[in-house]
Amino acid sequence: MQTVEVKQLYRESEKYLNQDVRVSGWVRTVRSSKAFGFIELNDGTFFKNLQIVFDEKLENFKEVEKLPISSSITVEGKLVETPGAKQPFEVQATKIIIEGMSSSDYPLQKKRHTFEYLRTIAHLRPRSNTFSAVFRVRSVAAFAIHKFFQERGFVYVNTPIITGSDCEGAGEMFRVTTLDLNNIPRKEDGSIDFSEDFFGREANLTVSGQLEAEIFALAYKKVYTFGPTFRAENSNTARHASEFWMIEPEMAFADLNDYMDTAEDMVKYIISYVLENAPEEMEFFNNFIDNTLLDRLNNVLNSEFARITYTEAIDLLKKSGKEFQYPVEWGCDLQTEHERYITEEIFKKPVFVTNYPKDIKAFYMRLNDDGKTVAAADLLVPGVGEIIGGSQREERYDVLVRRIEELGMRKEDYWWYLELRKYGETKHAGYGLGFERMIMYLTGMGNIRDVIPFPRTPGNCEF
Amino acid sequence: MQTVEVKQLYRESEKYLNQDVRVSGWVRTVRSSKAFGFIELNDGTFFKNLQIVFDEKLENFKEVEKLPISSSITVEGKLVETPGAKQPFEVQATKIIIEGMSSSDYPLQKKRHTFEYLRTIAHLRPRSNTFSAVFRVRSVAAFAIHKFFQERGFVYVNTPIITGSDCEGAGEMFRVTTLDLNNIPRKEDGSIDFSEDFFGREANLTVSGQLEAEIFALAYKKVYTFGPTFRAENSNTARHASEFWMIEPEMAFADLNDYMDTAEDMVKYIISYVLENAPEEMEFFNNFIDNTLLDRLNNVLNSEFARITYTEAIDLLKKSGKEFQYPVEWGCDLQTEHERYITEEIFKKPVFVTNYPKDIKAFYMRLNDDGKTVAAADLLVPGVGEIIGGSQREERYDVLVRRIEELGMRKEDYWWYLELRKYGETKHAGYGLGFERMIMYLTGMGNIRDVIPFPRTPGNCEF
Repeated sequence: MQTVEVKQLYRESEKYLNQDVRVSGWVRTVRSSKAFGFIELNDGTFFKNLQIVFDEKLENFKEVEKLPISSSITVEGKLVETPGAKQPFEVQATKIIIEGMSSSDYPLQKKRHTFEYLRTIAHLRPRSNTFSAVFRVRSVAAFAIHKFFQERGFVYVNTPIITGSDCEGAGEMFRVTTLDLNNIPRKEDGSIDFSEDFFGREANLTVSGQLEAEIFALAYKKVYTFGPTFRAENSNTARHASEFWMIEPEMAFADLNDYMDTAEDMVKYIISYVLENAPEEMEFFNNFIDNTLLDRLNNVLNSEFARITYTEAIDLLKKSGKEFQYPVEWGCDLQTEHERYITEEIFKKPVFVTNYPKDIKAFYMRLNDDGKTVAAADLLVPGVGEIIGGSQREERYDVLVRRIEELGMRKEDYWWYLELRKYGETKHAGYGLGFERMIMYLTGMGNIRDVIPFPRTPGNCEF
Repeated sequence: MQTVEVKQLYRESEKYLNQDVRVSGWVRTVRSSKAFGFIELNDGTFFKNLQIVFDEKLENFKEVEKLPISSSITVEGKLVETPGAKQPFEVQATKIIIEGMSSSDYPLQKKRHTFEYLRTIAHLRPRSNTFSAVFRVRSVAAFAIHKFFQERGFVYVNTPIITGSDCEGAGEMFRVTTLDLNNIPRKEDGSIDFSEDFFGREANLTVSGQLEAEIFALAYKKVYTFGPTFRAENSNTARHASEFWMIEPEMAFADLNDYMDTAEDMVKYIISYVLENAPEEMEFFNNFIDNTLLDRLNNVLNSEFARITYTEAIDLLKKSGKEFQYPVEWGCDLQTEHERYITEEIFKKPVFVTNYPKDIKAFYMRLNDDGKTVAAADLLVPGVGEIIGGSQREERYDVLVRRIEELGMRKEDYWWYLELRKYGETKHAGYGLGFERMIMYLTGMGNIRDVIPFPRTPGNCEF
């Protein structure tokens, strides 16, 4: 008898039809009448369940028909077609071995639960339809990203998580320490003696791997990171988490257009790959989470992304006659309402907005010849707003030094970053994609806490 | 004129021979005589350099012949074969554009540097032959791991980096905090008030994602993690880092043999994939780092890994007549010298040692029927010793509780881990592979600091 997985049965049913198979999984439901019953079995390898039919001939019929939800069992029987029924086939059980009887107080009973409640049982929620779909899509999308970059010759680089520099300024940082908080070492002047700390200095969790990725781009030409990043900001929104994963590609001999071309290809690649490799999950999201989802994603696949300058964007917003909560003026940062209006109402497809005022962007972005704007570009997508931010990097040593000094930053802190501009610098560009934002976009899930297996937010680090 | 990468030229030279091409990269060396010269150009896409020939006809001949090492240039010219020469082809330059002139104090001059020195210039060392090879192999191996598991239907899960539990006991932990160390909040009894900290409790960096991976294995059947883990141990060895990446697969409906089968397949898959996809780098390591490397890896590919019990291993070690620094007795933990003797001298191939005494293994490992040993297995490989550790997990609620109590641990801390045993528990197994150990094994590099882009060790977190 062949031991099989439910995915194999769905994907290659002809190979197994009318044969005896053995399959293990967890009971999602049991229904039974006097002489026979049905089990919906999920084995985790596939979104859909396998229907098991059993009858009184089973030795343990009485036990099986009372199996609590989520019990684990191994079933032996013949796989037969069920023409006209909801499911394409079922297993007629000849034997059901109970591996682990679940307790009858299993919290994930058939009735619907709120996502809020399910967060409190993060150890069980991957067994529900929604979260089973979310976290499989997350896995498929992660692989799509690696595949996209590896196929194009990008080198994957693990930039450091613990960092001694707080240079990037992308956000508040968490301190990493082994100091005894009850007995903090002091210097003579009373200040804390961080030379006694584990790394001999203050250390934090990284907010971005970009600056280190640039190091590798200037050696390998094309690289990408894919790792966790952190923000110690006390923001309790549906879009912010304290711990999240980022993808930060970086390319040498590349300018702003090269970044936009790569990012557009990447977004389309991820969407195609997920639609192809998790079709059942995507259909579920379209049916139960957001019924515009598949239309929206297919529209992205078939669009050429628009590209407009920030200045054009401001003009379009002003001319729109629309009343925004945040007024629009050249020089202001675009708010989500502006971003969504541009991509949803004006273009109805993804839009790159380029050449932002330098004062609202980071120090490392390349100064344009106008002296006022930088070669940055954000990608805005319908339904979300900004999903990618990137720029050409300032490769000119003198210009970069001037910018660092202008902003009152300490040049010494950037010694190695500046040396990259001294030893064979070239134009280069890169961007950052928040992985969870992408998963929200792909699934229609509205809260970042529901696309992270064990989310960390202010006040929350259970599990 | 086609813009090409050096990798394309090497892999598909017939497509480009006798054609005009444009290629950008960094100068590794320049040699010139009166009327002509040679540049070794590396563009980061390929381990080997591209030879550029140039002569006086170049407008900027005088500048080009004096180019400092690591300058970035764009070359245009014809690709021609060079029969009988060291390199298979060269580009006869018609134009050389200097993108970024390097400074003449570039630290990576042609002479050999020690690995210790190169660690101090981690922003430049990826441009050296050795580190260029190391970090490309690291990237290729990372993808091999994702590919292996994805092809087999494993779901990739991002277990949390910041954790509120210090349950796993795998090692010393780093504290993560946003408390102001100059003004630590206190409760009335004088103890620190961690309810004021960011997560409302004490938080640390994870030492392992295993317990959370088990959650996902009991939903998806087969899962794997691949992420950073941390140890705050003050150990300055060549094999320990404070921050390193781990792969932790976990499988439901699986026992110790299933784990060993999967791990053996995985190790062979990684080796094959790297030999196939980074052949130039692997040849380099074999020539310059460890000339037994390729033999050793090929031997692994062609071996069936041995499997012996711990008790058998102790017997073999005792009978060997060999004097060990640490004496061998049933009950003792195997030291590297023992492990290497078993795999290098006795079996001359990889060996799984199974069923260790429970007292030297973790609480979650499944107790064998003898009551003395657990269903654990470590994989020992020649040249390194232990490279993988894993076990069948204790799935029996009562046995697990007893073990937790026996060890004086607090049952409440494991509430969700225990609940997994209450709601559809089944036999399951998993293992951990230290990614850097694997890279050391694949490259022959002897120090973990030299296989991590920006290593973190006690006293070190520069870059």
